Amino acid sequence: MSRQQRTDLDAILRKSIQSFTPEPVEKMRENFASLMAMFPVPPVRTSDLTLADRRAVLVEPEEGVARPGTILYFHGGSFALGSPQTAMGLTASLVTRTGMRSISFDYRLAPEHPFPAGIHDCLAAYRALLDDGVDPGAIAFAGDSAGGGLTITTTLAARDAGLPLPGALVAFSPGLDHTRSGGSMDAKQGIDPFFTKEGMAYTGAMYLDGQEPNQELAAPAVLADLTGFPPILLQVGTNELLLDDSVRLAQRARDAEVDVILDITAGVPHVFQAFIGQLDEAGFALDRAALFISQHLHARS
Amino acid sequence: MSRQQRTDLDAILRKSIQSFTPEPVEKMRENFASLMAMFPVPPVRTSDLTLADRRAVLVEPEEGVARPGTILYFHGGSFALGSPQTAMGLTASLVTRTGMRSISFDYRLAPEHPFPAGIHDCLAAYRALLDDGVDPGAIAFAGDSAGGGLTITTTLAARDAGLPLPGALVAFSPGLDHTRSGGSMDAKQGIDPFFTKEGMAYTGAMYLDGQEPNQELAAPAVLADLTGFPPILLQVGTNELLLDDSVRLAQRARDAEVDVILDITAGVPHVFQAFIGQLDEAGFALDRAALFISQHLHARS
Repeated sequence: MSRQQRTDLDAILRKSIQSFTPEPVEKMRENFASLMAMFPVPPVRTSDLTLADRRAVLVEPEEGVARPGTILYFHGGSFALGSPQTAMGLTASLVTRTGMRSISFDYRLAPEHPFPAGIHDCLAAYRALLDDGVDPGAIAFAGDSAGGGLTITTTLAARDAGLPLPGALVAFSPGLDHTRSGGSMDAKQGIDPFFTKEGMAYTGAMYLDGQEPNQELAAPAVLADLTGFPPILLQVGTNELLLDDSVRLAQRARDAEVDVILDITAGVPHVFQAFIGQLDEAGFALDRAALFISQHLHARS
Repeated sequence: MSRQQRTDLDAILRKSIQSFTPEPVEKMRENFASLMAMFPVPPVRTSDLTLADRRAVLVEPEEGVARPGTILYFHGGSFALGSPQTAMGLTASLVTRTGMRSISFDYRLAPEHPFPAGIHDCLAAYRALLDDGVDPGAIAFAGDSAGGGLTITTTLAARDAGLPLPGALVAFSPGLDHTRSGGSMDAKQGIDPFFTKEGMAYTGAMYLDGQEPNQELAAPAVLADLTGFPPILLQVGTNELLLDDSVRLAQRARDAEVDVILDITAGVPHVFQAFIGQLDEAGFALDRAALFISQHLHARS
């Protein structure tokens, strides 16, 4: 049954695949917001707050008191699109499943604010939580796509800044390599229903703004030394240009003696966790992510 | 705290590392049984039964009715040592955590019964369950070490025999390559507190009995086509000669479009899940395994 769901979803998505046409970023943001608004959001309480001088959304369980622990969430959107609202289905799913609060953070986007502005913002947000007295071991970074990449790069930046590191990292289909050198960039072209190499080059150029991709914070899957990192959960589908970003990061984590789970679901697209209600694997993956967060924040919160 | 536990455990185990001395297999079986008897066994009900003309142990939750689903368990011991009793801590841990029954199966051992006798036995046990009317999708194969290898090879044998496949596979530190060609066979020599290459060659020779290791059922991590396999969970520590057995099998699963979780815990030894009570990671890993089993048998039981 579940394999049938994957095949059905793929057939639906495949119908809407279009050859890449460059559009103004404002139009892309509009389209992305419309697309993401189609996904269900489990019931939670939300309120706006300010963190490190940027907007953020506090997401809490609908009823009762949240369990100890904070999920600092970074939304997806190729570093150029999206907001806490576009990722709310994913963020709320983690909140309802863990019983913890999440803070979904509105970092600056390219092309107005290219690399590494977003990383600096996320680091500032993390530092603000620490300055507020939050135990770093009781914080998980979580994110999807570009935001999944930010869970890793923000931790690299935190380590370089001499800060204590968070307790766990969860990345859904993370983008971890602006050199785009993964084998899946070619092997999954035409299989990935959301991305083309041309489309990724278009938004990638906005983000890099002429800067060299061969650097740790732009291509952590290729260049990052992950020594001292907290446990990492990487979830990715096989129908993804970005599959090998996770595969290679997992190898780097293993080599650095870091706990790492490379959690691969076959025949599903980029950030398939958003398809709760349509795809059993979405809920299963989110349940595994929630257990992982609970295990690693529990002992330290 | 948890890192401290790992370091402490490694220091204790490291004290007892001895250079490899060949011993008669009867003596090795005795020593192995004594070692495994030191591990705690969560409370369960056990009873002997016969399955495919071999002894097996039915393991059930201590109280109440078991949830639907059967975990067919294959114990470890290098294909030459061990019994359902030696793996009872692991089997019982899965039973208490899933609420399902397990049948731990006493397959024939080398050197008296070399490759592929054990695989034939495990296939016969699975076939006997199907003949009894058990839904294959409500069966998980689980095992540790050599028994982890049997979860994969029994599934290969079942596919070759034209049988429907089980619903999920869980392997703790599986042995998946009698060619011993993994990079970790050298890289982790002296780091692995339990195994040496010489010791593995000694029991490996008992198992192969002069047969060619370059075949799918003797080296699935190198040679097996996993097409059509159910979801696989591989858990392994970084302090293991066998680390790359899991790494390579995960890659083969990914390439065959099979759901696969490669779940790596740093700084822990072979089948670290046995160390419940001493090592937080043991219980965490078992909880993840139980969730995985529940997810994949649930929909089909």
